[in-house]
Amino acid sequence: MQIGLIGLGRMGGNMRDRLRAAGHEVVGYDPRPEVADVGSLDELAAALSAPRVVWVMVPSGDPTRDTVRTLSETLSSGDLVIDGGNSRYTDDAPNAELLAAKGIGYVDCGVSGGIWGKDNGYGLMAGGSDEHIALAMPIFDALRPEGPREEGFAHAGPVGAGHFSKMVHNGIEYGLMQAYAEGFELMRASELVTDVPGVIQAWSRGTVVRSWLLDLLVNALRDDPDLSELEGYVDDSGEGRWTIEEAIRHAVPLPVISAALYARFASRQDESPAMKAVAALRHQFGGHAVKSSGPTGAPGDKAGPTSGTGSTQG
Amino acid sequence: MQIGLIGLGRMGGNMRDRLRAAGHEVVGYDPRPEVADVGSLDELAAALSAPRVVWVMVPSGDPTRDTVRTLSETLSSGDLVIDGGNSRYTDDAPNAELLAAKGIGYVDCGVSGGIWGKDNGYGLMAGGSDEHIALAMPIFDALRPEGPREEGFAHAGPVGAGHFSKMVHNGIEYGLMQAYAEGFELMRASELVTDVPGVIQAWSRGTVVRSWLLDLLVNALRDDPDLSELEGYVDDSGEGRWTIEEAIRHAVPLPVISAALYARFASRQDESPAMKAVAALRHQFGGHAVKSSGPTGAPGDKAGPTSGTGSTQG
Amino acid sequence: MQIGLIGLGRMGGNMRDRLRAAGHEVVGYDPRPEVADVGSLDELAAALSAPRVVWVMVPSGDPTRDTVRTLSETLSSGDLVIDGGNSRYTDDAPNAELLAAKGIGYVDCGVSGGIWGKDNGYGLMAGGSDEHIALAMPIFDALRPEGPREEGFAHAGPVGAGHFSKMVHNGIEYGLMQAYAEGFELMRASELVTDVPGVIQAWSRGTVVRSWLLDLLVNALRDDPDLSELEGYVDDSGEGRWTIEEAIRHAVPLPVISAALYARFASRQDESPAMKAVAALRHQFGGHAVKSSGPTGAPGDKAGPTSGTGSTQG
Amino acid sequence: MQIGLIGLGRMGGNMRDRLRAAGHEVVGYDPRPEVADVGSLDELAAALSAPRVVWVMVPSGDPTRDTVRTLSETLSSGDLVIDGGNSRYTDDAPNAELLAAKGIGYVDCGVSGGIWGKDNGYGLMAGGSDEHIALAMPIFDALRPEGPREEGFAHAGPVGAGHFSKMVHNGIEYGLMQAYAEGFELMRASELVTDVPGVIQAWSRGTVVRSWLLDLLVNALRDDPDLSELEGYVDDSGEGRWTIEEAIRHAVPLPVISAALYARFASRQDESPAMKAVAALRHQFGGHAVKSSGPTGAPGDKAGPTSGTGSTQG
Repeated sequence: MQIGLIGLGRMGGNMRDRLRAAGHEVVGYDPRPEVADVGSLDELAAALSAPRVVWVMVPSGDPTRDTVRTLSETLSSGDLVIDGGNSRYTDDAPNAELLAAKGIGYVDCGVSGGIWGKDNGYGLMAGGSDEHIALAMPIFDALRPEGPREEGFAHAGPVGAGHFSKMVHNGIEYGLMQAYAEGFELMRASELVTDVPGVIQAWSRGTVVRSWLLDLLVNALRDDPDLSELEGYVDDSGEGRWTIEEAIRHAVPLPVISAALYARFASRQDESPAMKAVAALRHQFGGHAVKSSGPTGAPGDKAGPTSGTGSTQG
Repeated sequence: MQIGLIGLGRMGGNMRDRLRAAGHEVVGYDPRPEVADVGSLDELAAALSAPRVVWVMVPSGDPTRDTVRTLSETLSSGDLVIDGGNSRYTDDAPNAELLAAKGIGYVDCGVSGGIWGKDNGYGLMAGGSDEHIALAMPIFDALRPEGPREEGFAHAGPVGAGHFSKMVHNGIEYGLMQAYAEGFELMRASELVTDVPGVIQAWSRGTVVRSWLLDLLVNALRDDPDLSELEGYVDDSGEGRWTIEEAIRHAVPLPVISAALYARFASRQDESPAMKAVAALRHQFGGHAVKSSGPTGAPGDKAGPTSGTGSTQG
Repeated sequence: MQIGLIGLGRMGGNMRDRLRAAGHEVVGYDPRPEVADVGSLDELAAALSAPRVVWVMVPSGDPTRDTVRTLSETLSSGDLVIDGGNSRYTDDAPNAELLAAKGIGYVDCGVSGGIWGKDNGYGLMAGGSDEHIALAMPIFDALRPEGPREEGFAHAGPVGAGHFSKMVHNGIEYGLMQAYAEGFELMRASELVTDVPGVIQAWSRGTVVRSWLLDLLVNALRDDPDLSELEGYVDDSGEGRWTIEEAIRHAVPLPVISAALYARFASRQDESPAMKAVAALRHQFGGHAVKSSGPTGAPGDKAGPTSGTGSTQG
Repeated sequence: MQIGLIGLGRMGGNMRDRLRAAGHEVVGYDPRPEVADVGSLDELAAALSAPRVVWVMVPSGDPTRDTVRTLSETLSSGDLVIDGGNSRYTDDAPNAELLAAKGIGYVDCGVSGGIWGKDNGYGLMAGGSDEHIALAMPIFDALRPEGPREEGFAHAGPVGAGHFSKMVHNGIEYGLMQAYAEGFELMRASELVTDVPGVIQAWSRGTVVRSWLLDLLVNALRDDPDLSELEGYVDDSGEGRWTIEEAIRHAVPLPVISAALYARFASRQDESPAMKAVAALRHQFGGHAVKSSGPTGAPGDKAGPTSGTGSTQG
């Protein structure tokens, strides 16, 4: 079938390739003319036969909201817009409402798979009406991995449910990554396991912890067994934060996902104001040695608890 | 090759089957005569040709330690004992020393895979000398999954490194399980995702969170979509605790694995003494309503924050 | 000086008493005529001389927002409204703007102290302009505890800073309470400390952990040494949630305050869906015994790790 | 009464002063002759009349165990040894047994108060028999703060209960300190509260969070409002670790105290191996930019979630 695709970055570009390989006709738009098939959204609309299906794959937030607003003026009644980006699910209802006023349908679709999806297929979670989902099903079938449809695609619920599911997916992902990372650090810290990359590779088959993320960790350790070429600095793309905010809204305890998010926050701090405050308190009550930020600061013991007659406080 | 196998419970029995299917000659001992091949450890020793290789697959702690002690008196110089159970790694050095005094070798081997290992193969992490590992390699090759050896087996380091690796593996496993579980709960708590089992199944292929544990969760939800037949009560087999204890010894922060362990502890409490104390404090400073344990206790609001003119405290 | 006081619940009523005891003239309004001094906000406005100072002490959210809106129509240019309730700080700027359009000033004031404030005085954190703070200072001086002003009152910053400070205060409070509660539970769980209430009382003087909350815990344990008359069920009034949301906005890791909030969430669940999922996973991979929710569910071991030949998984 | 005091460091020296000020006769021993009253433990024993009471105030672990062993040979039946240091409670039973074989009594006493105890008195938690506690009560009365005995002293239980209580006390202390520290950091991170030290000082009276630790934080911020002269590097003296280990032994969830301990661990890492692993994983699946440890590493965004078309992963 025909599909319009807006946003031809790493994700959108790969998806165009995968859709075309599956025999679909893709008309791609991107502000960078060297990658675009058409020069404007008007041209994109003109190039598609009604009912048009347009997949939006641009950064979440204002870029996606702006694109949807433009499409509400460019497309026609009976057309369908799919937001495949990482929008917050709370954007979906307003987007759908805006488009519905013009008779245009809306589906939100969480897409997982990263740069590997081009070849492996993408895991998809869609929100919207049965009718709109059915209209886009050939696209979903082309994007999802080979195998039974239900193992790579879900109609999660009404509008918003797709992005909500993707948000939770990413929150889980934070927890999974941190769990592996903590185990890696503990094995490294012990003097006992002499082949840490080998142990992690041996988990690839048969074990309870085998997973695609584990395979990626094996890859990373093959290239750099000590990860010495990386800094322990980890950004976040917002969905972990949204997951916690939803948990708070629903009074659901998420200790693991929160801990994973906080570890990322802490990884980005050169100095922790909180830990300065703890150091200050210890100094106040116990006369404990503290490290000054000046050049005279002596390195402290990294591992063992200190003991002394100086104080019985901790 | 020949192998003696002590302990024919669910794990040991399955391993006997898998070893035999690979063409090895297994002499199995178990206190239950109906499953055993021989009636005693003496008979087991007599049935094997030197150098004997004996795999111990009994509960960790005293049962394993007692078995090793008996083997130190039953086996001969040049033989090899492999502890494939879930012993704490700190048991390995004493076991190895006891056996070495008689010229008997020792290898500790962490085994992962649960009841699925019989067919899929087991992930193996072994600790010991190169010589002892080489002697047992045909057994490891039969137990591990098909595919490259390094994807199902690692020589993790010296004696103890196998069980240490398995301990960390299980700690990671706690974190992974809890991450999925938190995501499941959050989707259930929202009103938006109407097909939670479907979404989780759709993560099976292509997504970043795909894993064998995810596949198991899909299985569980297929049988019981609301998990209504289960209690939220989760035991632990000790290795998560040991993981935390090691982390503390090495000053390694493990917030995710700890949170997963604590969630299990809390799941086993009918009443939390800590939360009684918090309730008591709220009552003291703010006159906040508390739930009494008597029959008159009125159910409180489960989700929303309360507000009122009664107090400005939290 | 004269002051109008809207909201004569437990907090507002106590504050009226304290203000009157300090010699101020308080005109109180409340929808319940039996506690009110005037019958309407119009009457309240009429009873005060310009420039009027009106303290709002009603539930946060809609009740406070509605009251401020009404006051914007009832009061006159030059008057001052103080929101002393537990409003979210994000309500303050809109409130201030609404009133400023009529020339009416606005101060937000976080108030801490609970039911004890009537006699002890209240800790106060105010946000607003220097001019408005100065106008209300006699009221602040009457409400705050005896002693140096700076030990019971702060001009925290511009509009919003008072409620922001109070929000953080309550977040800290969650952490403090949970820390004591965890220590209480651990001492109770050990068989060693035979006089837990006595130990906690002995921390009242001289120790590093002495505090007002500790004194309250001593009181609670005096009445009910085992806290057996309480359920371990803890509500929350929203400020802990807001604290976490702010932390996420600013990428500040708050592991302790989050853990305290999550412990409250968990305390309100009869069954944890997450822990059902973990139980389901353990059952899937290891054949671990699970507790069914039917009448045949056998009680499991509450404390010790289980061990067996059944599985080497956790 | 007479008392022997071994260990005249900061704590022991202060305690000698306080005991003498209360009219007791203190014979102090320390390896440093310039502070000692006697030159050896033999001289100390000779200087005291039977039944002797000897207070040991030396570093925990080997120094304390060695001192107790020496005293078991130096003292006589009917004498009493009090370990007032920060020994792990598991040392107490062996110490008591060793001394009991010679007819010498043993009391373990947790001491809280830091360098302030000299003037304020120390909070005391003692473990031992009624008889031994009674023998030492004049010393406890001199060391504890003024006021009712039960507000500064507890007979916590049998031998070990004193140090167990002190261990829990210190675990709680970690949680309290971290709670204040997190609140400090969050207020600093917001642009709204312009007088953070002033707000914290305003919590000194009347509020729910007032405490001695808060007073110390006020002191610290008076000297250095931004804590700019300190590094965010926090040691630990072991008792927080022991608290977690006990919690694990008893299956008690301690999320807050653990989080506080882990924050200290993390504060001492220049680079987190775990976060390197998370960075490596993000790079693998999403092509996310990572910071290399070389000189070309560009500084990343510290606060805001990133968004882009590059990937829909987190």
